Amino acid sequence: MKTACLIIIGNEVLSGRTQDANLAFLGDGLNSVGVRLAEARVIPDDTDVIVNAVNDCRARFDYVFTTGGIGPTHDDITSAAIAKAFDLPLIRHPEALAALKKYYQNNEVELNEQRLKMTETPEGAILVSNPVSIAPGYQIGNVIVMAGVPRIMQAMFDGMKHTLAGGKPMMSRSILAHIGEGTIAKGLGDIQLQHEDVEIGSYPFFRDGKLGTSLVMRAIDPAAIDAAAEKIKTLVRSLGVEPIDE
Amino acid sequence: MKTACLIIIGNEVLSGRTQDANLAFLGDGLNSVGVRLAEARVIPDDTDVIVNAVNDCRARFDYVFTTGGIGPTHDDITSAAIAKAFDLPLIRHPEALAALKKYYQNNEVELNEQRLKMTETPEGAILVSNPVSIAPGYQIGNVIVMAGVPRIMQAMFDGMKHTLAGGKPMMSRSILAHIGEGTIAKGLGDIQLQHEDVEIGSYPFFRDGKLGTSLVMRAIDPAAIDAAAEKIKTLVRSLGVEPIDE
Repeated sequence: MKTACLIIIGNEVLSGRTQDANLAFLGDGLNSVGVRLAEARVIPDDTDVIVNAVNDCRARFDYVFTTGGIGPTHDDITSAAIAKAFDLPLIRHPEALAALKKYYQNNEVELNEQRLKMTETPEGAILVSNPVSIAPGYQIGNVIVMAGVPRIMQAMFDGMKHTLAGGKPMMSRSILAHIGEGTIAKGLGDIQLQHEDVEIGSYPFFRDGKLGTSLVMRAIDPAAIDAAAEKIKTLVRSLGVEPIDE
Repeated sequence: MKTACLIIIGNEVLSGRTQDANLAFLGDGLNSVGVRLAEARVIPDDTDVIVNAVNDCRARFDYVFTTGGIGPTHDDITSAAIAKAFDLPLIRHPEALAALKKYYQNNEVELNEQRLKMTETPEGAILVSNPVSIAPGYQIGNVIVMAGVPRIMQAMFDGMKHTLAGGKPMMSRSILAHIGEGTIAKGLGDIQLQHEDVEIGSYPFFRDGKLGTSLVMRAIDPAAIDAAAEKIKTLVRSLGVEPIDE
């Protein structure tokens, strides 16, 4: 299965100021096109850290996505760092330049030096469209550079995901049981051993003051999931609890 | 300044099923004790990946926190992986064993083999208390191993944070302006150059259909923040907009 890594660039995520919302969206979106999000990293706005993370990850994964740091302000250093990582010149991309000229002219806003920074890409990049606020993302090699604002990031990903060379989508199914993890653990481990083609996860929760466990099955083959699910339901019932399909 | 790294262990976070809430809590909590969260990683439930991430990060940061994978089920492999990373035997920690025996006896729940897994730590670990559901976290070397369930993780961190050798807390202040990033970028960059001791971040937002920018200043010294804040307020006013203290 093809793999991907997400690099979230931004001091504001590490400081706790901003709750990231892009990881969960990307993980779910990649499932649907048969690519597995295999790792994510959150790193600061620091050129050397970005260069090292990008070069490490693009060698290890089929795709690398980055979010954040492609705006017009002094702390937006992603594109310069990506160009450095690839040892490519940073240019004003002609298509991006044309799009921003038109957009700002129509809105009677000055296309100043700072806004022009948003046209910069490493030489040879292919643009990723931004229908929300025009300033584009781009792909260079196997690295896809996207905005950090979730609404823009989501539109960028949805516009380019059909170009990813993925496999069959990852399916999942979830069964909820009002039972402690420790009670179900032995039987669940046995079922996992019998169904190596299904990834079975167990996640405890407190909800409305009640303890319970979510049992999540993931696989390419829906029939394999259903076979494991039947055994899990039988197990939950044998412990005196009625399983709930989520 | 002391640095920390968070390693979030869990397929459910990468698949998009579960929205992580521990990163933002930890980042904010570490600010308050003068430790900087310098990186975070999200990795799957895979022993080799955990071992490599832990060994890489514990060499590079003053502290490493992990969340997830210390429950009783087959997919809880964190403690075995941490012991492998440190090349230490995995033992049933005597204090953890005593605490769980007492807790489950009081609740008339069987302390079966699977629940006993929650007493396992690398030899020499110091326990981190879990007032919510008793099964403890622990510290080994500079690595602090915590639960993934946010309520438990938060209680564990709050109970141990006073033991961290941090510095002065990181202060922050935030000014909101209903103005585009591209309009304020030049003046803001100039202010950043004049105030190298303050980290100035610029974050665009859409709220109630209106575009705006949050300007965030972070520093150890509150007077340095206030000095930069005054200049930013003057800049915003010079652009015809009234700044709002957040």
